[in-house]
Amino acid sequence: MSSFQPKNPDYRAVATDMFERQRAMQTLGISIARLEPGEVELAMSYSPDFTQQNGFVHAGIITAGLDNACGVAAFTLMPAGCDILTVEFKTNLLAPAKGERFAFRAHVVKPGRTLTFCEAGAYALNDGVETLVATMTGTLMALQGRE
Amino acid sequence: MSSFQPKNPDYRAVATDMFERQRAMQTLGISIARLEPGEVELAMSYSPDFTQQNGFVHAGIITAGLDNACGVAAFTLMPAGCDILTVEFKTNLLAPAKGERFAFRAHVVKPGRTLTFCEAGAYALNDGVETLVATMTGTLMALQGRE
Amino acid sequence: MSSFQPKNPDYRAVATDMFERQRAMQTLGISIARLEPGEVELAMSYSPDFTQQNGFVHAGIITAGLDNACGVAAFTLMPAGCDILTVEFKTNLLAPAKGERFAFRAHVVKPGRTLTFCEAGAYALNDGVETLVATMTGTLMALQGRE
Amino acid sequence: MSSFQPKNPDYRAVATDMFERQRAMQTLGISIARLEPGEVELAMSYSPDFTQQNGFVHAGIITAGLDNACGVAAFTLMPAGCDILTVEFKTNLLAPAKGERFAFRAHVVKPGRTLTFCEAGAYALNDGVETLVATMTGTLMALQGRE
Repeated sequence: MSSFQPKNPDYRAVATDMFERQRAMQTLGISIARLEPGEVELAMSYSPDFTQQNGFVHAGIITAGLDNACGVAAFTLMPAGCDILTVEFKTNLLAPAKGERFAFRAHVVKPGRTLTFCEAGAYALNDGVETLVATMTGTLMALQGRE
Repeated sequence: MSSFQPKNPDYRAVATDMFERQRAMQTLGISIARLEPGEVELAMSYSPDFTQQNGFVHAGIITAGLDNACGVAAFTLMPAGCDILTVEFKTNLLAPAKGERFAFRAHVVKPGRTLTFCEAGAYALNDGVETLVATMTGTLMALQGRE
Repeated sequence: MSSFQPKNPDYRAVATDMFERQRAMQTLGISIARLEPGEVELAMSYSPDFTQQNGFVHAGIITAGLDNACGVAAFTLMPAGCDILTVEFKTNLLAPAKGERFAFRAHVVKPGRTLTFCEAGAYALNDGVETLVATMTGTLMALQGRE
Repeated sequence: MSSFQPKNPDYRAVATDMFERQRAMQTLGISIARLEPGEVELAMSYSPDFTQQNGFVHAGIITAGLDNACGVAAFTLMPAGCDILTVEFKTNLLAPAKGERFAFRAHVVKPGRTLTFCEAGAYALNDGVETLVATMTGTLMALQGRE
């Protein structure tokens, strides 16, 4: 359960709308599985279209899911009328992204007026077993006055 | 001009083959524009399919291009019979990825028997002007004996 | 409680010895407060000798504590006869490092034969209140055959 | 030669003053060797007080030098009356920090009103040979209205 108090009572609608305007998420088949203030889980099915040379999901695609999870998590805590952009992230790849489905779970560690710091994990679901395949730490920035 | 001496005389064919076996690269429309020992440039056209909420290319897609550029650059210096995986990378997003075409340029900074360190930049080409939109530093690992 | 099984039954003595051979740790006044397989807490008192322009502890010193916490945590899970080196780390600075004492807590997320991935947090203790001031994610490498 | 135009004509005095108010720099024996708009080189002599278990300079100390080089480089381009803080950095360790002297060279890649992105390298000087031992990419933040 999240311990953050959203500044925007419409955080759910606004964060969902921001997510749905990202064509990349539709193309990659990524959807919102769970959304709380400062926390989000995204879901993606395996597709051979996004694989690297060994048939696993490409690290860049895993990163796209992680980055978006961080962005949506951060966005739920921003005031109304903001836009958001990613400043930086680091991804550590821990295991091959081999699975039927993938979950990208992010949470806000430190919200801020300008910068928000998030952590996220990418999990592969394979034969009922969940494996942490990658982690991200990232900094997101609120752009104010974009009503 | 590259100053590295490849260990594998077939580096060009082997690196190109590894790249072409990545379905994600075809799906994203990324191709090799230039390939030297320890250096590579990849090219991508803009596609609305891979955009974020403001119509710019998604940071995860830019990262996929950067990561692959690092991987191919590192792979050109690895001995025959290796496979390669990404250990980690950090991406800093410096400007909106707005352009008609994109170039991902990577070079090896420090090759090693096990680990290779690379730097890369993503450039947007817009109305004839080139802008640095993101940078990556990354660590790649050689997996030996995968003949 | 740690869930890792150390490969080296002498992990405690070996990790403590490695820590104590680091002159930098003595100079910075950093000591081991807690040590379990794959987990460590280091402690440091505030000293004006290691401050930045506003009298807070310098980010590089905080990083030295975090890096060492990751190194010791990783080292507890390595086999006998290894040496260890840091491959890379990222530090995110979340709040001014203002406090009387500091704790650096690290744990192994993914141990590996060659590479081990760790996460760590730096906490400032100020008037009885603990604040997360920085986080680290880092990759450590085992160098084998250094008996 | 630097291509940046400083906003503060007193950039040299202000950046030098900020550096000199950092007690950590004196304790570590780090000084400014060269300072241009958006570029800086710091110098440090080897001291056994700041070594790790093999007698090389500790990665955290190398990071302190790199971080400060980035901070000073970024600060030269900020307007008068700012303070500066580090948001994040990643350090990649490429070779043992073994040398008689060390140089930390940073330059601004992308200055910004709020955030500035820098790259830096740490070089060991050993028997007249210079070796790149670590790199940093980092994000610095201007805090305005701190006259």
